[in-house]
Amino acid sequence: TSQTRAADPQTKQAEALDLYRRTRDRTRDLCADLRTEDMVVQSMEDASPTKWHLAHTTWFFEQFILREHMPGYESPDDRFAFLFNSYYVQAGPRHTRSNRGLITRPGVAEVMSFREHVDASMERLLEQGDPAVAELAVLGCHHEMQHQELLVTDLLHALSFNPLLPAIRAPEPMPVAAEHQMGWTDHEGGIREIGHAGEGFSYDCEEPRHEVLLRPFRLATRPVTNRDWIAFIEDGGYESAPLWLSDGWATVEREGWDAPLYWWRDGEEWWTFTPRGPQPVNLDAPVAHVSYYEADAFARWAGKRLPTEAEWEVAARDLPIEGNFMDDGQLRPLPGQGRHQMYGDVWEWTQSPFTPYPGFRPPEGAIGEYNGKFMCSQFVLRGGACTTPLEQMRPSYRNFFYPHQRWQTTGLRLAEDG
Amino acid sequence: TSQTRAADPQTKQAEALDLYRRTRDRTRDLCADLRTEDMVVQSMEDASPTKWHLAHTTWFFEQFILREHMPGYESPDDRFAFLFNSYYVQAGPRHTRSNRGLITRPGVAEVMSFREHVDASMERLLEQGDPAVAELAVLGCHHEMQHQELLVTDLLHALSFNPLLPAIRAPEPMPVAAEHQMGWTDHEGGIREIGHAGEGFSYDCEEPRHEVLLRPFRLATRPVTNRDWIAFIEDGGYESAPLWLSDGWATVEREGWDAPLYWWRDGEEWWTFTPRGPQPVNLDAPVAHVSYYEADAFARWAGKRLPTEAEWEVAARDLPIEGNFMDDGQLRPLPGQGRHQMYGDVWEWTQSPFTPYPGFRPPEGAIGEYNGKFMCSQFVLRGGACTTPLEQMRPSYRNFFYPHQRWQTTGLRLAEDG
Amino acid sequence: TSQTRAADPQTKQAEALDLYRRTRDRTRDLCADLRTEDMVVQSMEDASPTKWHLAHTTWFFEQFILREHMPGYESPDDRFAFLFNSYYVQAGPRHTRSNRGLITRPGVAEVMSFREHVDASMERLLEQGDPAVAELAVLGCHHEMQHQELLVTDLLHALSFNPLLPAIRAPEPMPVAAEHQMGWTDHEGGIREIGHAGEGFSYDCEEPRHEVLLRPFRLATRPVTNRDWIAFIEDGGYESAPLWLSDGWATVEREGWDAPLYWWRDGEEWWTFTPRGPQPVNLDAPVAHVSYYEADAFARWAGKRLPTEAEWEVAARDLPIEGNFMDDGQLRPLPGQGRHQMYGDVWEWTQSPFTPYPGFRPPEGAIGEYNGKFMCSQFVLRGGACTTPLEQMRPSYRNFFYPHQRWQTTGLRLAEDG
Amino acid sequence: TSQTRAADPQTKQAEALDLYRRTRDRTRDLCADLRTEDMVVQSMEDASPTKWHLAHTTWFFEQFILREHMPGYESPDDRFAFLFNSYYVQAGPRHTRSNRGLITRPGVAEVMSFREHVDASMERLLEQGDPAVAELAVLGCHHEMQHQELLVTDLLHALSFNPLLPAIRAPEPMPVAAEHQMGWTDHEGGIREIGHAGEGFSYDCEEPRHEVLLRPFRLATRPVTNRDWIAFIEDGGYESAPLWLSDGWATVEREGWDAPLYWWRDGEEWWTFTPRGPQPVNLDAPVAHVSYYEADAFARWAGKRLPTEAEWEVAARDLPIEGNFMDDGQLRPLPGQGRHQMYGDVWEWTQSPFTPYPGFRPPEGAIGEYNGKFMCSQFVLRGGACTTPLEQMRPSYRNFFYPHQRWQTTGLRLAEDG
Ligand SMILES: [Fe+3]
Ligand SMILES: [Fe+3]
Ligand SMILES: [Fe+3]
Ligand SMILES: [Fe+3]
Repeated sequence: TSQTRAADPQTKQAEALDLYRRTRDRTRDLCADLRTEDMVVQSMEDASPTKWHLAHTTWFFEQFILREHMPGYESPDDRFAFLFNSYYVQAGPRHTRSNRGLITRPGVAEVMSFREHVDASMERLLEQGDPAVAELAVLGCHHEMQHQELLVTDLLHALSFNPLLPAIRAPEPMPVAAEHQMGWTDHEGGIREIGHAGEGFSYDCEEPRHEVLLRPFRLATRPVTNRDWIAFIEDGGYESAPLWLSDGWATVEREGWDAPLYWWRDGEEWWTFTPRGPQPVNLDAPVAHVSYYEADAFARWAGKRLPTEAEWEVAARDLPIEGNFMDDGQLRPLPGQGRHQMYGDVWEWTQSPFTPYPGFRPPEGAIGEYNGKFMCSQFVLRGGACTTPLEQMRPSYRNFFYPHQRWQTTGLRLAEDG
Repeated sequence: TSQTRAADPQTKQAEALDLYRRTRDRTRDLCADLRTEDMVVQSMEDASPTKWHLAHTTWFFEQFILREHMPGYESPDDRFAFLFNSYYVQAGPRHTRSNRGLITRPGVAEVMSFREHVDASMERLLEQGDPAVAELAVLGCHHEMQHQELLVTDLLHALSFNPLLPAIRAPEPMPVAAEHQMGWTDHEGGIREIGHAGEGFSYDCEEPRHEVLLRPFRLATRPVTNRDWIAFIEDGGYESAPLWLSDGWATVEREGWDAPLYWWRDGEEWWTFTPRGPQPVNLDAPVAHVSYYEADAFARWAGKRLPTEAEWEVAARDLPIEGNFMDDGQLRPLPGQGRHQMYGDVWEWTQSPFTPYPGFRPPEGAIGEYNGKFMCSQFVLRGGACTTPLEQMRPSYRNFFYPHQRWQTTGLRLAEDG
Repeated sequence: TSQTRAADPQTKQAEALDLYRRTRDRTRDLCADLRTEDMVVQSMEDASPTKWHLAHTTWFFEQFILREHMPGYESPDDRFAFLFNSYYVQAGPRHTRSNRGLITRPGVAEVMSFREHVDASMERLLEQGDPAVAELAVLGCHHEMQHQELLVTDLLHALSFNPLLPAIRAPEPMPVAAEHQMGWTDHEGGIREIGHAGEGFSYDCEEPRHEVLLRPFRLATRPVTNRDWIAFIEDGGYESAPLWLSDGWATVEREGWDAPLYWWRDGEEWWTFTPRGPQPVNLDAPVAHVSYYEADAFARWAGKRLPTEAEWEVAARDLPIEGNFMDDGQLRPLPGQGRHQMYGDVWEWTQSPFTPYPGFRPPEGAIGEYNGKFMCSQFVLRGGACTTPLEQMRPSYRNFFYPHQRWQTTGLRLAEDG
Repeated sequence: TSQTRAADPQTKQAEALDLYRRTRDRTRDLCADLRTEDMVVQSMEDASPTKWHLAHTTWFFEQFILREHMPGYESPDDRFAFLFNSYYVQAGPRHTRSNRGLITRPGVAEVMSFREHVDASMERLLEQGDPAVAELAVLGCHHEMQHQELLVTDLLHALSFNPLLPAIRAPEPMPVAAEHQMGWTDHEGGIREIGHAGEGFSYDCEEPRHEVLLRPFRLATRPVTNRDWIAFIEDGGYESAPLWLSDGWATVEREGWDAPLYWWRDGEEWWTFTPRGPQPVNLDAPVAHVSYYEADAFARWAGKRLPTEAEWEVAARDLPIEGNFMDDGQLRPLPGQGRHQMYGDVWEWTQSPFTPYPGFRPPEGAIGEYNGKFMCSQFVLRGGACTTPLEQMRPSYRNFFYPHQRWQTTGLRLAEDG
C-alpha cells in the first residue's frame, strides 16, 4: 500500500496524472518492437506473458480505482477481472497461474483496447482531483513499474528457449571500459534508522521506519564483475561443495549449474543472452543472473560476505540515485562509472531474509495483502537494475526473490566486518 | 513411406498436383478464423502449436523433395530445418519438443511466406513430371492431412484452458436425432487377408498384406453413444475398480477422471467443449474423447469387448467410405445415419496393440523411420473421425495412440464372439 | 485360476500335499541365509520386502482355502488380511503399495509363526481329501512359486543399493565354457495350436487353447550372450537412436542406460552384481537384466527380430523342460549346454504384447481377477530363468513385464522370417 | 563446534567421561523396546533409520577422536566410515541419503558391536586425560543427543505408516489437567545481549554473543494448546487463504492439510499418534507437530505474532531449565505446570530465520561445516521438547527446521508488541 503524504491536493493531482501518463507510455514503448507472438507465451510458472502484464496492470486501475471511485464506469469485459487478477484464488487445475500462457483470447489488440479504455477513464477521473484517487493512481503506477521490469525479464527468459535467440531490442555495441579495481568504504556502527518515512511513495513492507543496531562494516566500491565471476568459475567455484549452502549445492547438482543463467562458452570466450541478443560477456560489467546461492558461494570464496539490507541502506541513502536504469534503454549492465554503482545495473543480493520490520502491520483490505504474505524464504535485494524504471527506486526499496531464482537482473556486492 | 503403384506417369503427376493444391488449401482454410495468438501456444507435450504444424508440414516438402530433387532450390531460412523438424534428436534441454510453444519467431506471417515459397517451388517441380517427385508429394500430402487433424485437436486442447472457452469455428445448432438402437452384424471366421495392397497410397505400417485367422464375431451396428456413456457414468462406471485394467484404474484415480475429456455437468445436463464452442452433450452422437482405458472398461461393463483391428478391417472394407469427416466442417460427432457409422465421426479403439504386421520391414532412410519406432504400448484405432480429412481414409488405415490419451476424437464400437 | 483336470481324487490329494510341502520348504530355504534386516526393506514400488512375500503367500492360503473350507479356522491375527493382501484397493495415501517397506510389525518371527500356523491347518485340511481344496492348494503353490522368484529378484535389487554389495548366497566360482556359436533352427508355417489344454496346472491367461496362423520362421539355437551384448555396447548400441523404439530411446536418455542393470566397468573388465555377490561378467552366459527396449534394439542392430510368443511356444513344446532353474541353486545364468537353452537361465522377451487369447474369459470371483487386468502395455516372456522354480515351468507359461523393467532375470533369443 | 572453557583438566575429564557414559546409555535405553525390523526402515528423505543413528553417532567418535588421537586404533570395519558419514558427498544415485533405509548390512547386531568397540576405546582414551579429547567427546555427546531426538521422531514417522500404529513405548494414561488460561508477561525494550558466552558447551551458531536492539514486547505465559488449536480448526483456519503465507497456503492445498500431523477425527473426538501409541488429543497439552506455516497462520488468526528468537532468549534465560523432557520418559507434551512451560514439551517456532549472528565465522575443518551451511530458508525454534534430552538444553540453543516440516515435536507460543 502507499503513503504519499503532504503536498497540496492540486500538486498531488497534477503529479499523479503526469506519473500516470509517463508510466503507461513507458509500458507501450517497451512493446514497440515486439511481435504479437512474443506477447503470448509463458516460459515457466514464475514468469508471465507480456500480454498478461499489459492486462493485469490495467485491471489493477480498473478494479481498485475505476470500479470504486467512478460512478457509472463500465468495463469492456467483466470477465477480464477473472483472467487478469493475480490475487484471485482459482478453483480448478485448468485455469491456474502456470496456464497464463494458454489464454490466447482476448488477443493483444483487445488488450490494447482495454488499456485505452481504462486510460481514457483514468484521465477523466484524475482530473476531478480526488486526493484518494490520486494516491491510488500513484500506487497503480508503481505496481505497473514493477511489472515493466518483469515484462522484460520474463520475455528474455521465454526468448532464451528459441534457438535463434531473437533480440527484444536491436543490438548495439557494448561500451568498452578499463578494468576497475574494487576498493572499500568504511562505515561506523551504532544505532541507525532504516525504512521509509515522510513524503513520497513506498510499499507497506518498507515501514515502519525503525532503529537497527549496526556494527562497523565495510562495503566494496563496486559490484562483483563478470571478470571476477570468471575467476570464480576457473577456480572451480561451481565444483567445490564446501563453498555452498546445503540447499545451494543440491541445486547446483540438480540443475547442472556451472555459470550464470544465459551464459555459454564459445571456445575461449564466454557469451551471454541479453535483451539486445547474444553478446560476448563484458568483463568489467557487473555480473547478472546469479542466484542468492551463487552470490553467497562467491562471497565465501572471496573470503567476504554479503551485506545486510540495513548496511546497504545506511550506506546508500546519501548517494544520488543515478546509474544505468531502464530509462537509459541499455537493458544490460554496464561497466561502472558512477558513485560505487550502488543504484542501477544489477539488483544486489543481501544476506537479509525478507521479514517484517518491527511493528509491521499489513494494511486492511485486498490491496493490503500486497507484500506480507511473501515474507518467508526469500532474500532482500537492493539498488535496482538496468531493467528497473529509475522512478521506482528509493533507498528504502526492498525487492525480494527466492534464493534459487536467477531470471531477474540480479548480482551482488561484497561486504566485510569493519 | 508410400506406395502409389501403377497409373501412367502423366495421370500420376496430374493427380499429385491436384492433391497438393487441395491439401495445402485445406490447411489454410482451417486457419482462416484463427488469431495469431491462437497459433503460438502449446498446451502439453503431446500437442503442438498451429504455427508449428503449418511450418513442419511445409518443411517436409522442402526437406525430402525440394532439397533432393530441385537443383538450385534455396530455402528462405536454413534454420527452419532445425526448428520444424520433428525427427531431429535435439541436443539440450532448452530446445525440446515440450518447448515448441516458446518459439515465437519466425512468426505466423513468416511461416505463411515460407508456405508460399515452398508452394511456388513445388508447383514448378511437379509440372516437370518426375514420377518419384509425384510419389513423394503424395506422401507429403498425406503427412499434412495427419497434421490437419492434429492442428484442430491440439488447438481445441489449448483453448480448453481458457475460462472463456472460445470457439475455433462459429457455433451452429446440432442436428437432433431420434434414439437409434444398437444392432449387431454377424461375421464368419476363417483365414482372411488384411493390410494394404495394390494401387493407392498407404503407410509402411499397413503392409505387407497378410493372412490372419479369424473366429466368428459380431460387431455393433453403431458406435457407443453419449447416451450409452451417461448410463455407464450413472451406473458408477468410473468408481468400480473391477471394470478397469490395472493401469487404467491408476489413471482414473490419479487424474480424477469421472467423465470423458471436456465434459462437465451443469445441473442435470452434461455439457462439452467442441471446436464450435461449449454445447450440451448430444445424446445420440457417438461418444468422443475417451481413452482406451475408458473404452475397455465400458466394454467390460457392457458384457462385450472391443473388436480387433483385423475384425474391424474385414467388416469395413466393403462398406462405402462415407460419413462425417473434416470436409463436412461439422468438427463434432453427429447422430448416425450412414452405414453403421464405420467411417467418420470418431476413431474407434480396437483391442489390438500397434505391432508390426508379419514380414514388416521399415523402408530405408529418414522417411522410413516413419511408423516403426512407435510400435510399442500403443493401440490401433480405425475408421476416421469428424476431424479427419476424408481423403486420408481407407480400410487399411491404422491410427494409434497410447491408452491414456484422449485429446483426439476417439470413441468405440462394441464387439463379441460369434 | 487353475485347471487340474482328471486324475483320481486320491492321487490329486497326495500330489497336492506333496507339492504344498515342497513349495513351502523351498520358500523357507530361500531365506535360510538372510538376516532379519534384509527381509524388511523395499527398494522401489515394483518390488516388495521378503517379509511381505512370506506373509502374502501365506495369506493366500488362509483367505481362499482355510477361511472358505475349514470350519472353525482361526487366524492368528485378522489384521494380516489387511496388511498382506495385494488386491485390496487401499483407502489412504499412507498405506499404499509403495509403503510396504515401512511395515516393521508384525516382525519376521511373527510372520514365520503365521506360516507355521497356516501350514499345520493346511496339512490337516488337505488330508481330508476335498478335491476342490486340493485344486486350490495347487493354485496357491504356483502363486507362491511366482513369489519365490520375486523374492530373490526384489532382494537383489534392494541389496544393489548397499555399497558393500552383500551376497544372498555364498559366492562360488562360475563354470568356464568355450564360446558357443549361434546356429538356427527352421520351422514351418501353417495353422498351429497354442495355449494350455488338458491336465496339469495353468493360469487363466494360458487359455483357451486356440489356433494361430504362423509363417515360416527361424529361431536361434541359443540366447544372446554377454559376449554378444558387449559387441553391441562397443558398437555404440546405446548411443544410436535409430536402433531404438521411440519410448526406449527416451528411457535410455532419461535413465542414462549404457549397459544392462547391475553392470559396471572395472578397467577393461565388465562386472555384475548377482545373488552370489559381485562377479566378472561371464562372456558365454546369456545376458540378463535387459529390458524389452534393449532386447528390441539389440535385435534390430543384429538385423534380426524377437520371436512371437506363438513361435516360441511351437518351437519349445517338444523339447524337454530342463536347464538352469532355481532348483539348481546357481541363481545366475550359465553358459549353455542343454537343448538350445530354451528353458531356464533367462526369461526371453518376445515381441508379443500380453493380450487375451481369443475367447478368453476371466474366471468369476476374486481369484479370477488374477491376470486379465494386466493385459495392457506389457510384453510376454517365455522359458523361465535361473531364478524360476522348475516345477512352475510349462510350454504355455506366459510371463509378462513392462518394456522398461529389467530387475527380473530377463534376456532374449533372436528370430527371423523363414 | 564446541567451547568448553575453564574448569581444571581433571574435572573436565571426569565430567566428559560421565557425560559419555550417560549419553551412550540413554541411546541404548531408547532402543530397549524396539525390534530389529523397526531399526532398519526410513520413511522419507528427511528421516533416517534407527540403525543409522546408532552407527552414525558412533562413527563420529571414531572419526574425529579415535582416529585422530588414539595411536593404533583399529576400526572393526573401515567401510563404516563410508556408510555412516552424513557429510560425505556421495558419488552416484544409488547410494544417497534417501537410500539409507536400504542398507540392511551391517545389521543391528554388528552396529551394536561397533558401539561397544568404540565405547571401550573411548573409555580408555578418556582416562588418559587429554583435555582436547575431553572437549571433543563432549561435542560428540551433544551430537548424539541431537540424534536421540531424531531417532524417536524419525521412528514415530515410520511407524505412522503402519496401519496397526504400533507404539514405541508401552501406552500409559495421560494426566488430566484443568484448563489453563493464557496470560502475558511484559518485557522492556533496549539493547540486550544474546548468544552463548563463557563456560559450558555450545554450537558454533550460538556465537558470538552480541548485542541486539529490542522493542518492548509481551509473551504468552504458556504455549498454544490443543484446545486452542481445535478452535482454530473449527473457525476454518485451514480453509482461509488470507491467514496464510503464500508458500504456506500452497502447501496446505498440495498436501491437503486440515489438522496437525498425526491427527485424525473419530466421530466427535480428535485422536493422535504418539510414541505411546494412538491416544485422544489431550486438550490442555501444548499442540505439537505443526509446521511454521501453521504456527504463523495461527498467530495471525489470533491477532498476535510469533516471538523473535532474541525475545525468546531474553525472556527465558533467567528461568530454571525444567519441564517435560526426554528424561521424563513421557515422550508426549503434557498440560503445563512449570514456569510458563518455556522449556520442554514442544519446540517453539520463532519468526526468526536461521541466520548467522553478526561476526559469525565457522570453525576450520570438517567439524566446522556443522551448522553454517544450513543458514538458508529455515526458521529458529527454541526451548526443547518432550523428545529432547534435558542435558542438551540451554537458553542460547538454536534449533532450526524448514517451514513446511512438522515431523518434529514442534509447537508455538504467542507474542505481541509491548
Ligand atoms: Fe501485480
Ligand atoms: Fe510430422
Ligand atoms: Fe501375489
Ligand atoms: Fe549427525
